[in-house]
Amino acid sequence: MTQAPVYQSVDALQEFATRCFVAVGMESNDATLVADTLIAAELRGVTSHGLVRLPVYLRNLKDGQVDARARPVLIADAPAVALVNGQRAMGQVASKHAMDLAIGRARGHGIGAVAVRNSNHFGAGAYWAMLALPEQMIGVAMTNGAVARAPTGGVTPLLGNNPIAVASPGGSEQPIVLDMAQTMVARGWIKLAAMRGQPLPDGWAQDAEGRPTNDPAAALDGSLLPIGGYKGYGLSIVVELLSAAISGAAMGPALENMGFTAGAHEERRYAVHDVGGVGTGHFFLAIDIARFLPLDQYTARVDALVRTMKASTLGAGVESILLPGEREFVTEGRRRETGVPMSDEVSSELRSASELTDIPVP
Amino acid sequence: MTQAPVYQSVDALQEFATRCFVAVGMESNDATLVADTLIAAELRGVTSHGLVRLPVYLRNLKDGQVDARARPVLIADAPAVALVNGQRAMGQVASKHAMDLAIGRARGHGIGAVAVRNSNHFGAGAYWAMLALPEQMIGVAMTNGAVARAPTGGVTPLLGNNPIAVASPGGSEQPIVLDMAQTMVARGWIKLAAMRGQPLPDGWAQDAEGRPTNDPAAALDGSLLPIGGYKGYGLSIVVELLSAAISGAAMGPALENMGFTAGAHEERRYAVHDVGGVGTGHFFLAIDIARFLPLDQYTARVDALVRTMKASTLGAGVESILLPGEREFVTEGRRRETGVPMSDEVSSELRSASELTDIPVP
Repeated sequence: MTQAPVYQSVDALQEFATRCFVAVGMESNDATLVADTLIAAELRGVTSHGLVRLPVYLRNLKDGQVDARARPVLIADAPAVALVNGQRAMGQVASKHAMDLAIGRARGHGIGAVAVRNSNHFGAGAYWAMLALPEQMIGVAMTNGAVARAPTGGVTPLLGNNPIAVASPGGSEQPIVLDMAQTMVARGWIKLAAMRGQPLPDGWAQDAEGRPTNDPAAALDGSLLPIGGYKGYGLSIVVELLSAAISGAAMGPALENMGFTAGAHEERRYAVHDVGGVGTGHFFLAIDIARFLPLDQYTARVDALVRTMKASTLGAGVESILLPGEREFVTEGRRRETGVPMSDEVSSELRSASELTDIPVP
Repeated sequence: MTQAPVYQSVDALQEFATRCFVAVGMESNDATLVADTLIAAELRGVTSHGLVRLPVYLRNLKDGQVDARARPVLIADAPAVALVNGQRAMGQVASKHAMDLAIGRARGHGIGAVAVRNSNHFGAGAYWAMLALPEQMIGVAMTNGAVARAPTGGVTPLLGNNPIAVASPGGSEQPIVLDMAQTMVARGWIKLAAMRGQPLPDGWAQDAEGRPTNDPAAALDGSLLPIGGYKGYGLSIVVELLSAAISGAAMGPALENMGFTAGAHEERRYAVHDVGGVGTGHFFLAIDIARFLPLDQYTARVDALVRTMKASTLGAGVESILLPGEREFVTEGRRRETGVPMSDEVSSELRSASELTDIPVP
């Protein structure tokens, strides 16, 4: 027996989330922006970065861990690059400011890069990379985050998931949008395997002593492994360099990030060679395609690349070849018709948000 | 019984390789450059991109597939970005030209990006990213290449290994240098497992029907899998966009690349949605650190990040935590003392090079 899912309208959810953020002190424009990022994630099927984050964000704003009224400020400036102090604002507020700056610099110089320090969790990276799309630019967004993983060979969690997002316009095909963390799978998949008593594939996780394990219980005591072993570890270091080392953000375990649960301030448990650094760090890049070759040539080439991939002979049991982001565009198209499906988890988090703000759940 | 390895001096190898390239028509400066890239790879222990490539490079130059005298030319220009036509030169000649341009643009504007079309195999990507290091910049290099892999869900090889290299200066610690292809392992590891009759770990390869396989023989009939499954596939697409789509290089299977064996021109076997595009494509990025924050602050922060990683509790059987590129710096330090170890394979390729050029092997 499956229950018919309950759907909620995009507009009602957008209004609810916006009013919640205003209720804890954000200005209307900022509140609308953060609400939009959460709804966008819901529409795209990225529920991990959707409305379930609402109560955590609200609590962090209420208790002052995140400054609801902060305005990001420029602290270093060169023609094609800039450094922004997020002033402990919502990561979304700092990221909008920074990606807009990067796009402006790219408009003037062909490419623009903006690093951010003293920010917070910025939600789904794809949202920021995709801001480049209406500008006919390629966008890149990356961020460091709360420690979740050990360096290769170690067992101490010293690096975040450090996601990278890249978005490129297509022509008659959809844009290409990659948004990936550096672990093989999210922790939720390990928990699911544990519940089902299923062994894990090789390469997903290690136990508490750093040995590769296929046992989900041992994996939950241990830690997630990066994609391609030392390769994913290397990519995480690169994201840390660009997001945090060059921005002056807190690095690795020095980062007391806005957590996914309330009261995320854990004490520092690890040896940290600290050199200052404050808050979460991001790095944004915009590339103005038309400075390289005519835009219609580029988009025709992206379309050709998409169609070439789709012309691959299919593997056993596969229905079609997908491009990065394609599944999310399909989901978004469907949910713009149906509204957003309300899982028990999302409904429960909306009730928590309502209790925190006295805004009635739609 | 192990035989004592024979070592050859760096200077003698550099002179030999340079004379070989001059013998097939290259100018002295260009010949010295390409020889240097091969010796650098040998010193760093990246033998796959070292002197074993010499005969292939020489044959491609002799038969005119690669133009020994070509000069790369600028075909699009904006303040912080440029597009270069490699004019069918050696990839190394085009890449030196392009990375120098990117560094110059970064000097002027904070960041510089240069895309290249109509180039050839550029050797090890780390060499180009590392050109940024003496300039106190962060360097990035990527390239597309001969098809070797299927898109996720498919079985037709439509994408190259599409490596990404990133280099950052350190302070008192070594620079961080990541240079990674997008497959879990190189094909050589599958062959080794086949010879030894050992099963493959999950996630390394698929069979000819696209099913995951642990059987090395089935894997050799099938294809290598990317790191993190669809994540590595997505990264390969991003490299294809930046190296080839935006540069006007040949994309995916349309690329008739300079091969690792002579006569690499295979007929096109796959459906290709072609929109022109010529030769191999590269993408180079240079970021001028001091435009973001004082250089000594940055390098102190990189050192702190390195030491924080090394302070991790070690996994069972692990002696130390390494940073990306650290192993190569250790190897290089040793080989600058001992010279380059001459394996049977390298010795044999040097003899082939000698036969092609009448330059005596040192």
